[in-house]
This record gives sequence, structure tokens and C-alpha cells, in this order.
Amino acid sequence: MRYRERLKHAGEAAEEAGLDAVLVTPSADLVYLTGYDPPPLERLTCLVVRPGLDPVLVVPQLEEPLATSSLEDPIELAAWSETDDPYALVASLVGRAQAVACSDRMWAVHLMGLRRSLRGAATRLASSILAPMRVVKDRDELHLLKRAARSADEVFHRIIEERLEGTTEAEVGERLGALLLELGHEEVGFTIVGSGPNAASPHHEPTDRGIRAGDGIVLDFGGALGRYRSDISRTIAVAKPSTELAHVHEVVREAQERAFGAIYPGVPAQEVDRAARQVIEQAGYGDRFIHRTGHGIGLEEHEDPYIVAGNDEVLTPGMCFSIEPGIYLEGELGARIEDIVAVTDNGARRLNTAPRELIVTR
Amino acid sequence: MRYRERLKHAGEAAEEAGLDAVLVTPSADLVYLTGYDPPPLERLTCLVVRPGLDPVLVVPQLEEPLATSSLEDPIELAAWSETDDPYALVASLVGRAQAVACSDRMWAVHLMGLRRSLRGAATRLASSILAPMRVVKDRDELHLLKRAARSADEVFHRIIEERLEGTTEAEVGERLGALLLELGHEEVGFTIVGSGPNAASPHHEPTDRGIRAGDGIVLDFGGALGRYRSDISRTIAVAKPSTELAHVHEVVREAQERAFGAIYPGVPAQEVDRAARQVIEQAGYGDRFIHRTGHGIGLEEHEDPYIVAGNDEVLTPGMCFSIEPGIYLEGELGARIEDIVAVTDNGARRLNTAPRELIVTR
Repeated sequence: MRYRERLKHAGEAAEEAGLDAVLVTPSADLVYLTGYDPPPLERLTCLVVRPGLDPVLVVPQLEEPLATSSLEDPIELAAWSETDDPYALVASLVGRAQAVACSDRMWAVHLMGLRRSLRGAATRLASSILAPMRVVKDRDELHLLKRAARSADEVFHRIIEERLEGTTEAEVGERLGALLLELGHEEVGFTIVGSGPNAASPHHEPTDRGIRAGDGIVLDFGGALGRYRSDISRTIAVAKPSTELAHVHEVVREAQERAFGAIYPGVPAQEVDRAARQVIEQAGYGDRFIHRTGHGIGLEEHEDPYIVAGNDEVLTPGMCFSIEPGIYLEGELGARIEDIVAVTDNGARRLNTAPRELIVTR
Repeated sequence: MRYRERLKHAGEAAEEAGLDAVLVTPSADLVYLTGYDPPPLERLTCLVVRPGLDPVLVVPQLEEPLATSSLEDPIELAAWSETDDPYALVASLVGRAQAVACSDRMWAVHLMGLRRSLRGAATRLASSILAPMRVVKDRDELHLLKRAARSADEVFHRIIEERLEGTTEAEVGERLGALLLELGHEEVGFTIVGSGPNAASPHHEPTDRGIRAGDGIVLDFGGALGRYRSDISRTIAVAKPSTELAHVHEVVREAQERAFGAIYPGVPAQEVDRAARQVIEQAGYGDRFIHRTGHGIGLEEHEDPYIVAGNDEVLTPGMCFSIEPGIYLEGELGARIEDIVAVTDNGARRLNTAPRELIVTR
């Protein structure tokens, strides 16, 4: 039912935008519109959404049974065999076209195949149609994001009860993954464990570095629960934090607090980035906050809205995104604090509620 | 060292093809050329390979430390900050261009961003340059594919020792994943467990269907070991196979044997498909063999060469691919047998050696 409404909405939006079709290959866009989540493959699977016509899902013949059994709301299927040209099949469904939109994550090999078959049609990005729909979460989506965030909070509570000194980053990373699965996630997305100087690399991959007393550790992890994503960061200290870590952490905590306080319906996204950045700049670390303040989250880990300078997209109730300022001192330490928040009618609500003060662990 | 040679080779091939640059976003192509394997993100990471010039890796500023620590052979980095235009940065490295090649799995959002910045340059697929390099495996790659295949074989040996009757497809799928990790894989790619009538869906996703006596089960699973992929299928029977399953299985086994026997250097890929298909057609199941006979394998699960009608690409020593004929009877049963094989100087070698006869389990 939900999918039928979304498909109808997408068709209407395409018509308003003067598009002859929206073409969606396996991706969060396809899951959002149909619930169908096949692996992205070299074999073309492509949803064809056309104004005023029923949608058609083009599938490889061998995946016809998979599609049939996966679709909650049935969609007309058009199957192609291994020796057919799937791009010509899509083109025959679209007909003579001026302009089509293709999902943002469509592979180049498919995009070029479709362009060849849809000779002359302009191609745009499907986010022009789908991002405004996906960016505001409905009640069910909010519920799932909340559950995912709670599970991630619980993983954090559990990991800080364990003895980390003497283990390695890789071991802590594995443990975070196991806890995510144990506490309700169906998929581990990523586990960043940056200890000591490694914390200065925002996307650090866990190594065999042994964790020792005095280390700060950036933990940043998440995955999928009911297909919706979690993403939380906390910075902790082992045994005893250095004075510098404690100071940097406090600046980051204050920046994150200010970002949260800046979130209201009607505020441009970049204002939230500005609020966090001002605190860090005033503390003298402006050039060490080397990333945006946050990103939207939902079926994807990173999606609209992006909380970054230059983005004047206006916040609306139901938008969900991370606020995650950080400070990175190369060769020394790093700190980041991240919560997922939801914009409400009169401000914002944190979906993560794990403690944000500097926790000292064993 | 290996990466430096591959990059040099790619630059030379680009020059011969009249390309001003090969642009490679995170994918197996990037791993092949550099060993670097960051997550594909909305933030652009892009390797720029130019004839006669050193390669440059464009990275988001926050991933500069990750790239630096990940690259075995150092490459010049060009970092962009969150408010820079990464596509303009790539374009400035490419200069005035007539034609560039983009990796086949580049996302549309990046391809369109690059096209906009490289105004007027024709875009082609990077597989025109990289597929001929990747399709022939060197000794190290063959070694890793062999290790991955052996590990998958061992998973099969272990699962058929377990009691399957009374468990569910989902439970068997989870067990296969756990065994893959236990036996050396670093990543589980997929686990297909199609029991009874579900075996008629080639890409079936494991369900809660209980496995019972008399069921045939298609097991098809694989993952990554040392970044190279495994992929094996076997069809087994629980307690006692039906006469029809035993017959269909024997036809598939014979078809797979004939496909194997057809592999020689100099033979077009489609001849191998033809050899398998003839056996199945002669047995009267031609229209129930609803997929190609195989696909190349390496850093990707599916890559060149594809063993499919219409592909006259000539087999060469060092090519590795699956041979996996199958028969699918809707509502009844299915059977598939799949090995990874390597083309040798005088024929082919199976990398999988698990038994291909119909195994009857508990």
C-alpha cells in the first residue's frame, strides 16, 4: 500500500518535472519505492516509473521468481533472457522520450547502456524526484530509525563495560559488529575504532594497534535494523584522559550541543554546520574540523539532507540526520561525538541518548 | 610494485585507445590498480590515470589519512575539502580532453558530475581498458582464487555432515556464512539455500521453510578470501532423492562435465555455453536452463569473461570463470552444479573439487 502511494507520488512528480520516466536500478531508491532489494549486478534490474502509466519492473529472467516472491505490492514484471538486450527493453517501455531521470547510484555501465537505447533523451538524476520524498520520514520510518539508534546506544553501553586496555582496535571492531547483530541489527555497516593517534583519521580502519592506558578512542559504528540505518560516534578514554583530550572532547561536546540547539523547522541546513563550527573555531581548532557536521540517514547511511556549508535546504519536521563535529590532531589524537536527530515541529529530538560526556573505561 | 606496473600498463592502454584519462572510483578496478578499497560514498574518490603522467588519487580530505595508510605503493594524493567541487578538481588534472573512460561501476551521480566538469569530452567505459588486463589472472591471483575455492569446498564438506532435515533454509544459510568465515574467508558474499520447490528460483533468498525428507536443495555460496572471490553450487538430496531429482541432477552433472571438456585456449566463450546447453536441450529441458553457463570471477563475483551465447571472446590461459548449468522446474525442484575453473595451456583446471555426484544427506 505504502509502496503503491510512493510510486504514484513519484509518477506525479516526474510529470511535473517534465520527465518521461524515472529509471531506478537496485539501490535504496528501489527499496523505498517497491521494497525490493536484489543485489546490484551486471545484469540489469530496472524499475520504470512513467507518468500516468503503471510502473514496470524489468528483471533478468532468472530473478523473476525472486522478484515475484519479494514484492509486497505486486508490480508488472518484464523479464529478459540472457541473450536479450535489457536496455532496448527499457527503451521500449519508455517510448519516445525527451528526458528521463536515472537513480543516482546507477552504475555507469547501465547508464551508458540506457543512454544508447534512449537515443537523444536527456538524462538527469532521480534524486531530483526522489530525494524530496525520501528526506522527510514517515511514522514507520521514524520508528525504525529510533529502534536502530537505541540498539546502537546499547552497543555503546555494552562496549564501555568491557576491558579495552590490552585489546587491539581490530578486536574492538569485531566486538562492536557482534554486539550490533546480537542487539537487533541485521547487518553491520561499519566499525571505526581509532585509538591514540589513529583517532585523528576520521574514517580509520581498525588495525592491530594495541589499546593502552591514556589512549583516547573514537568509536563510530552502525548498520541496518529493519533496513534503516544507525550511526553513532563517541570518544572515550582508557584509564585516564590526557588534559588535551579532555579539553578537545569538551570543545566537541559543546559544538555538538550548539548544533543540536540550532535545529528548528525553517532553518537552512548550513546554519547547523555553522553553529558547530563556530564553537570549534573559537576554541582555535577551526582548521582541524575537516568534515561537514552531518548527513541525512534513512535507508542509506548517507543521504539528504547534508549538514554542510553551502546547503541552504530548509529543515522540515521528519528530517533525520547526524550531527557529528570532530577535531583531529595529526599524530596525536582525535575526538568526535555523533547523534542521529529528528527534526520536530518545534525543534529536534535526539534518537541516540548514550552519554556524551567523556567516559573513562578500563 | 605490482600496482605500479598495472598503473603503467593502464596508462599505455589508454594512450593506444586515444583516451586522455581513465577515471576510477571505488570498485574492484580501483583495488586492482592500487590496492585501495574505501567504501563507495557520495563523496568522490577518483583515481586519475593519464598517459605519460603519474597517476593521482583524488580523495575527500577526511580520508587522506586512510588513503595514505592504505596505499602499499604511494600515489600522489589530491584532497578536496567538503566545500570544494571534486569534479572540477578531477577536470583540472585531466586538462582539455577529447575522451575519457570511467569505471563501469561508477555511480551516475559521479559520472554526471564529471561529464559536467569535463565539458564536451566523450565518456566511455573503463572496462575497454581494464577488463583485458583483469581477465587474465597472474600467479598470485590464481593462488588466491584457488585458496578461496578450497575453503568453499571445505564449507560444503562440513555442511553435508550436519543434519539438515528439520532445520530451515535461513538456518542453513547462516551456517554456511559462519563456516565461510571460520574456514578462512574474510567476507560472506551470499548464501543461496533453495529447498524443494524453492530450488527452482536460481537467486532464491533463504526463507523459514523447513527442510524435509525428499527435498532437493540447491546450495550456492561464496565470499572473499584475500579479496578474491569464491562461488560454488551443489545440489543435494535430503534422506532420499525423488526419481525426477536424480534424473535432472544427472543431466546437469553431464552438462557441467561437457562444459568443462569444451574449455581450451582459443575456444570462444560461447562454445562452452553451447556445450552445456546441448546436453540439457537433448534431455528435453532446454527452456528450463534459464541462465548463461557462467561468469568470470576474481576481485568481483561476476566479471569478464561471461560464458554466454553471443560472446565470441576467445579463452586464454589464466582466465577464471564459473561453469554452472542448471535446470529449474517451477513449483517442483531445481538443480545446479557450479565449479570455478582456470584455463590452462592445454585445457582447464577445476579450482573446486567437492564431489559433483548427488550427495544424500540426513
